[in-house]
Amino acid sequence: MASLEFDLIDRYFKEPFGPLLASHATRVPLGIGDDCAMLNPDPGHTLFVSTDTLVSGVHFYPDVAPQDLGWKALAVNLSDLAASGAEPLGFTLALSLPALDPAWLHHFSDGLLRIAQTHRCPLVGGDTTKTNLPGGLSITVTVFGQAPALHSGFPRSSAVEGHRLWAQGLPGLARIGLLLEADQRGLYDTVAMQPDSAVWTALKAGMPQAVRLRACQQLNCPQPQIQLGLQLRNLAAACLDTSDGLSGDVAHIAQASQVAVLIKESALLDAWHRAFPEWIGQLNLNERQWLLDCALTGGDDYGLCFTAAPTADVALRQLSGPHALFELGMVTAGQGVWLQSQGDASLNPVPLVKRSYTHF
Amino acid sequence: MASLEFDLIDRYFKEPFGPLLASHATRVPLGIGDDCAMLNPDPGHTLFVSTDTLVSGVHFYPDVAPQDLGWKALAVNLSDLAASGAEPLGFTLALSLPALDPAWLHHFSDGLLRIAQTHRCPLVGGDTTKTNLPGGLSITVTVFGQAPALHSGFPRSSAVEGHRLWAQGLPGLARIGLLLEADQRGLYDTVAMQPDSAVWTALKAGMPQAVRLRACQQLNCPQPQIQLGLQLRNLAAACLDTSDGLSGDVAHIAQASQVAVLIKESALLDAWHRAFPEWIGQLNLNERQWLLDCALTGGDDYGLCFTAAPTADVALRQLSGPHALFELGMVTAGQGVWLQSQGDASLNPVPLVKRSYTHF
Repeated sequence: MASLEFDLIDRYFKEPFGPLLASHATRVPLGIGDDCAMLNPDPGHTLFVSTDTLVSGVHFYPDVAPQDLGWKALAVNLSDLAASGAEPLGFTLALSLPALDPAWLHHFSDGLLRIAQTHRCPLVGGDTTKTNLPGGLSITVTVFGQAPALHSGFPRSSAVEGHRLWAQGLPGLARIGLLLEADQRGLYDTVAMQPDSAVWTALKAGMPQAVRLRACQQLNCPQPQIQLGLQLRNLAAACLDTSDGLSGDVAHIAQASQVAVLIKESALLDAWHRAFPEWIGQLNLNERQWLLDCALTGGDDYGLCFTAAPTADVALRQLSGPHALFELGMVTAGQGVWLQSQGDASLNPVPLVKRSYTHF
Repeated sequence: MASLEFDLIDRYFKEPFGPLLASHATRVPLGIGDDCAMLNPDPGHTLFVSTDTLVSGVHFYPDVAPQDLGWKALAVNLSDLAASGAEPLGFTLALSLPALDPAWLHHFSDGLLRIAQTHRCPLVGGDTTKTNLPGGLSITVTVFGQAPALHSGFPRSSAVEGHRLWAQGLPGLARIGLLLEADQRGLYDTVAMQPDSAVWTALKAGMPQAVRLRACQQLNCPQPQIQLGLQLRNLAAACLDTSDGLSGDVAHIAQASQVAVLIKESALLDAWHRAFPEWIGQLNLNERQWLLDCALTGGDDYGLCFTAAPTADVALRQLSGPHALFELGMVTAGQGVWLQSQGDASLNPVPLVKRSYTHF
């Protein structure tokens, strides 16, 4: 690293993040500026680590508000801690910049600081590099958390026949946000997975402003479910965050645990109905089906999805209101993800083709 | 993440790195495949963290051998652990790929595995993303290490008047490697910091093959000084790895510790002379001065540079042979980095202008 880079790091990262770091001096005795940062998890605690990269043009539009980008870069990583039931300790930031834009850096740092403060997660180190490619902005955050040594971390392999499947938030909401943002830029065709845009056009026309706002908010500023993750420590078995679309996410649990997972369409629709009763009440059958597809295949939601034994039902129901938690299905013997269709009283689930988003 | 990405991660990262991870099951109870990896430093130990990004066209030529790139991506991070006196625990890998090239991935994974095995540092997690930019390859590694809680971590702020300054390796060697590699590609002008290429042309003409090989090796496959870092735990005060050019690196210590640091040119030349006596013996005054400039301003060496109290002299001299360690100068009252010129018996150091490499 050289002088300009040091100035930049000092001004936009070391200084504004200094007080938060200083207030964590016991857990982070050495922060930005040395070869390594030092971290002290509390005695008897295990460390949790996750890393996620956001690449311009792949994970966000180049013209996205830098505050939102700063928020999201840490949010998607904190969401992994949440899905492991870990408490945040700190994070490192690796930033590749095509240019030095002080205004952009100021706002990016602002959004990043806001979420870091919200979750008491100090910036402990990083690396800023120049890329020669215009539009080559990319952001890699590595986040550190802790949990008592006895906590399992909710591995995907721990779902068991007879567990309930629970979900949190509104699966598909971020996908609607993405479609709205793409539409605004005349780019609907590049992100639409459903070939028929007529349903989308009708849906969009009748979509209340409140839905639009929440959908874009969910896409750009997702709320990592750290508090819920901590409350699930003695309740959940396998848990993950819904980043790749519900069906793909749940397939990971099914595969790792060698079980079948049944998703009830009606539970998904009910969740949407609770959030937006008037709007959902007006949708016709095609539109509801479109919304269900969105919920099953749209990524970037960063809600939690987990399995739990029936003995956890009462406790989970108490958490359900404040955290928008709902029962989504069940774990059975078998393999893969199955879907129980709307209004189908019989138990004849059909195998679900995995349709979640793929980069390559 | 979607299916192709999972296949790719399994084939090139999860499977080949599996045995190394499995042999670290106590320290890494949960590795690749869940939202977070879990790490258990040994009881009474502090965790050390560092992150470094390598960007195509900035930190390496796009046609660099992928084995070397895999090696270097982890090496530059392990070097930060070495400079903190920490023992490796594991690392995460965030890889942004413009395309899926199985042969490239195979060789990259190979080089990465080789250094991971050498330093017993398992891959514990990661994120693979697609970038839409041709040539947009970038690699961010975050490395984790540990040291007993009483170990200071050699912060840059702990140099004290009266300390000796020590260096390890051959400062400037990687810079010669870079010039050779650039030359081969007809790109000498893009990396030369010295405007006069006549000296370089003459130097290169007389450069033995052994020097060329070692220089390119130093550039492409640097050896992180983990063992030396561990042996320095009770000997060194401030320590860093020489990644930005010796003068810039030492300036960090001077600034953080509020001291002046004196570098003796003769000590640098002696180190080069010990390594290549015949070649250095033949150089004229201009060529020696060119080499000194290289040593002071050329980056990417990843040797260690540290201060130590005179009471550590005997122990450090015992380490000096096997680790190519040498006394480079001293810490005095004042500010900044000073240079004592060759053959100047008086103590009239001159302020050294910082000339290390800058991205921006």
